Amino acid sequence: MVELRKDPITGRWVIIATDRAKRPMGVALPPDSPSPEIDPFLPGNEYLTPPEILRYADESGKAPWALRVVPNKFPALKVEGEIEREGIGLYDKMSGIGAHEVVIETPDPDKRLVDYNEHELELVFSAFRDRSRDLQRDARLKYVLAFKNEGRLAGATQLHGHSQLIALPMVPSVVTEELEGAADYYSFKERNVYLDIVNQELRYGERLVTDNPDFVTIAPFASRFPFELWILPRRYAPCFHEIRDDQITFLAKIVSHTMKLLDRALGVFAFNFIIHTSPLQDCHPAYYHWHIEITPRLTQLGGFEIGTGYHINPTPPEKVAEYLRKTKL
Amino acid sequence: MVELRKDPITGRWVIIATDRAKRPMGVALPPDSPSPEIDPFLPGNEYLTPPEILRYADESGKAPWALRVVPNKFPALKVEGEIEREGIGLYDKMSGIGAHEVVIETPDPDKRLVDYNEHELELVFSAFRDRSRDLQRDARLKYVLAFKNEGRLAGATQLHGHSQLIALPMVPSVVTEELEGAADYYSFKERNVYLDIVNQELRYGERLVTDNPDFVTIAPFASRFPFELWILPRRYAPCFHEIRDDQITFLAKIVSHTMKLLDRALGVFAFNFIIHTSPLQDCHPAYYHWHIEITPRLTQLGGFEIGTGYHINPTPPEKVAEYLRKTKL
Repeated sequence: MVELRKDPITGRWVIIATDRAKRPMGVALPPDSPSPEIDPFLPGNEYLTPPEILRYADESGKAPWALRVVPNKFPALKVEGEIEREGIGLYDKMSGIGAHEVVIETPDPDKRLVDYNEHELELVFSAFRDRSRDLQRDARLKYVLAFKNEGRLAGATQLHGHSQLIALPMVPSVVTEELEGAADYYSFKERNVYLDIVNQELRYGERLVTDNPDFVTIAPFASRFPFELWILPRRYAPCFHEIRDDQITFLAKIVSHTMKLLDRALGVFAFNFIIHTSPLQDCHPAYYHWHIEITPRLTQLGGFEIGTGYHINPTPPEKVAEYLRKTKL
Repeated sequence: MVELRKDPITGRWVIIATDRAKRPMGVALPPDSPSPEIDPFLPGNEYLTPPEILRYADESGKAPWALRVVPNKFPALKVEGEIEREGIGLYDKMSGIGAHEVVIETPDPDKRLVDYNEHELELVFSAFRDRSRDLQRDARLKYVLAFKNEGRLAGATQLHGHSQLIALPMVPSVVTEELEGAADYYSFKERNVYLDIVNQELRYGERLVTDNPDFVTIAPFASRFPFELWILPRRYAPCFHEIRDDQITFLAKIVSHTMKLLDRALGVFAFNFIIHTSPLQDCHPAYYHWHIEITPRLTQLGGFEIGTGYHINPTPPEKVAEYLRKTKL
């Protein structure tokens, strides 16, 4: 069973995906299945994953491949079928149409994101771009979320380096809030709020961590998490999957540098790495800007965060930025 | 430093509270302080907490008290001062006015919520009510969130049984979404959506877990978390702090029964227990209903949840309700 259910009060969607209960660490009604010891992402174990959608060759010839994209074996959404809506009394549900893919980022089972060299990072971002472009052709799909969970505290169940692409039949509420807020700002100021943020942070430097010709890394003014960092393009760019190769080069550089700074500051830490971008079928709003949000998961989210939607953060972003600027690599 | 900062894009507030970095398991710039071994909530250690705001006597005379409410030693918000707003370039901040109190629910350091008898639960809910009524008199405060984190995975840093009250100078976004959604439903249907949910669940029973003359426990249709349960009053009741003593008796009964069912199903598990109620200064909207949301924390929230605001849940609420209805106590 894969279906989308809408909370009748808030309108919030939930994906009920019972197939995922079969996966390691998934929650089923007891007893749960044991976690397998075999790494399905290791070269030689390709038969354990569904057939691959995309493969980048390893140019050095040392490994059978450099990166693979495969459908998620325990998908939250499925590509087959039509979008059907149904009412159950006062409730609403919709068939769970979408796509759920896994980007196996490296043949090496032990590399963390911080260990990837710039070329390896370029491949990851190229895979996000190439798969997003392909998914965009399916008019049923409204949004592609590309994200990475590293470490168990960040929700990773499989520790071999990978990220995920989830294509949804609706624009998620977090992105809708960004789009609406950015549109309001634009109609009031006639400026793009993301560019205003980039310019203010570059001018005053208090929350600036690092920058290069195409990107900046900042500790955002209203950081929800200690050591939360955002990477933003310096120029108008609403849509991640239109990124050019020369921009991917600079993106890989700033991601590598940013992850190394966090690694020196925090040691081994769990984090989410999330690309925020514009809707697939409406990709060029003047007010939006794709960007990356990196959220270290050093503390657990508690009842305050779940009950209010707000966060309590004990570490001011200005302190984080100052600390990271002074960090020697 | 305690201040409220607004994200310029989404309007989402964040509390930057550097005092909290001093607490055990708080995150500070390295090095972090070690976790103390002493339980500040134990009888005899009252000197370790700020002076108490409320105390209920232990009628059996076995312990020096049955329940205490004290200000949080590491507050996210502070009562002193005026609400001041300030702009920093394009950003907005506000002084961190509010209240942050700790309800020490029991003198016993080892009791989990499931171990409380009905009388002990009555005291906890009476304390929430009595403190909320007192905080309502402060016109600066717009909302009181009463919640409990049990277990480290649910965000608890202190394992001795306690809950928290956080009074905010604004209505949190989760509650605003509920109020707006419920108001929309009311204007469309001329009915209270919460009462419609209660009536539908009582009539069809698929997601009903248990009920008594004043309350029902259901597995909500769009459950975000496996084994998420909601406890709702059966009759119109927008405002938790107007609960009567006879209703507290039935609330204690259904909470006790619900927690025992979850305990039998899940063993020792981490969870958040959150009271959703109407705004302090506008307590009687016809369309709202106070209720309790219990969210077990069996899996970690990952990039999908943080990046979309949606949840993936592998366990359908109908299965949860059926399983719990069949559970023998």
